[in-house]
Amino acid sequence: MDTSVEQNWFTERDGLSGSAFSLEITDRIHDEQSSLQRIEVYETRTFGRLLTLDGVIMLSDRDQFIYHEMIAQPALCMHPQPNHVAIIGGGDCGTLQQVALHDRVQHIDLVEIDERVVRVSERFFSYLCTANTDPRVHMHFSDGIAWCEQQAESSLDVILVDSTDPVGPAEGLFREPFFRSVHRSLKPQGLMVQQSESPLLHQDIILQMHQRLRSVGFSDVKTLLFPLCVYPSGWWSATIAAKDGVIPVTPLIIPDFPFHYYNNDIHQAAFALPAFLRRILEQADPEQKSG
Amino acid sequence: MDTSVEQNWFTERDGLSGSAFSLEITDRIHDEQSSLQRIEVYETRTFGRLLTLDGVIMLSDRDQFIYHEMIAQPALCMHPQPNHVAIIGGGDCGTLQQVALHDRVQHIDLVEIDERVVRVSERFFSYLCTANTDPRVHMHFSDGIAWCEQQAESSLDVILVDSTDPVGPAEGLFREPFFRSVHRSLKPQGLMVQQSESPLLHQDIILQMHQRLRSVGFSDVKTLLFPLCVYPSGWWSATIAAKDGVIPVTPLIIPDFPFHYYNNDIHQAAFALPAFLRRILEQADPEQKSG
Repeated sequence: MDTSVEQNWFTERDGLSGSAFSLEITDRIHDEQSSLQRIEVYETRTFGRLLTLDGVIMLSDRDQFIYHEMIAQPALCMHPQPNHVAIIGGGDCGTLQQVALHDRVQHIDLVEIDERVVRVSERFFSYLCTANTDPRVHMHFSDGIAWCEQQAESSLDVILVDSTDPVGPAEGLFREPFFRSVHRSLKPQGLMVQQSESPLLHQDIILQMHQRLRSVGFSDVKTLLFPLCVYPSGWWSATIAAKDGVIPVTPLIIPDFPFHYYNNDIHQAAFALPAFLRRILEQADPEQKSG
Repeated sequence: MDTSVEQNWFTERDGLSGSAFSLEITDRIHDEQSSLQRIEVYETRTFGRLLTLDGVIMLSDRDQFIYHEMIAQPALCMHPQPNHVAIIGGGDCGTLQQVALHDRVQHIDLVEIDERVVRVSERFFSYLCTANTDPRVHMHFSDGIAWCEQQAESSLDVILVDSTDPVGPAEGLFREPFFRSVHRSLKPQGLMVQQSESPLLHQDIILQMHQRLRSVGFSDVKTLLFPLCVYPSGWWSATIAAKDGVIPVTPLIIPDFPFHYYNNDIHQAAFALPAFLRRILEQADPEQKSG
């Protein structure tokens, strides 16, 4: 990934996909090197504020709602009793905020490796951090992989992996040892959701996730799709895995929250796979051929 | 719109949305000024060939299939008897190719204002032009608005408007006089589909289309959504209007064509509106509130 700021345009170039996305910026309002990464916040002319880590776009005010609702809500609305939820990553706290909307959730662990991301978000994206002081929320500034390994067997209902791309620090979050420890720490009926990159650019990653999640024992794996303007290709995915049983495409409940993207129709629509992706994922699960 | 080619990157900057999309290019293999516009073809490193008109990206080899299938297939697969189909614009012939797949279609008019676009596509995107010599295809190199006005009342089953953005030459295609002549020339059960810009960036255009299409007499209007990497925001829409009756969300038939994007699930999913867009479109049709 290669970033440039020239003539008031912030550009994230993805050499692998040979594509780039740019936003017109009016100011850089924060720039720090934490012990782990460079954290910057820009004011853009039309997308509100922009958060980047090591030059890679994490979120913009304008379209963050799509990502955060789609990482959190489908699993929360499908799980019969999501008492205990863990978020791995998610330092901007937008996913946490979505989870905390649910009264049924009694305990939320946010496991973010870099405390500075949370603090920067509290300062510059305070509207995402309204749940940070909720008494149900427990923040752990440590490595998500190690944290998961330390959890008791069958202790969590939902695990949301809201990570950066599978290169560098987050690479281990896409590997079997981590998936195995997630599977072990989930209760029966437990669900895991993980951001899984672009359906146009990273089909290999999505297929590999399906194969690896099944190989460690998850009984069903499905990928849901949504647009996301500020990520490469403008199209993104989350992959959801069930400890046992089949992932229902229909939500159990749709709470009356002030969603901007999610609703009952979108929940079901997100699971519709384009022809090319269905063909690819049949390699991981020949039973998904129907539909 | 502002285009630049620097250090092997083609960049389309959209000043209005303050965003830009770039592709790494290896060569420019065609550049001509037709009587109407500048037509260029680039070789990209990872997206195949790229067609631009006046510096605005029209299609790339890598993701054109999504656009062409979603402009053509939902209407073709919903209409009970699509004998006579007209395409307004669509000079790259990708939409034409999708329509020609259907044996039920007996006559196809392609009304493209710039013959040079068709000729350039035949040369550089020949895989999209396989239907150009089909005896059912009739090409008219003229203005689509005037052509529509000349059609007999109730003479067409499906009209697909595959145009450029609603600025400059294509502006009239988004106005009531054109919609009125489309409505008039459609047979009972007739359907019109028109590309309708980005749901993230151009909500005003989508709302306005709904209002204008209803005001000229269309009985139902729905917008369908799909990803499109090379268009601004990576997320695009088509708006479909029915001369009479209600647009069914379920297709009548799903033919066994070698689709890359479209299928039965995608057809239904494309009609799912995000919460924010549903709220906006309720202004045009309060009855759509349910769902």
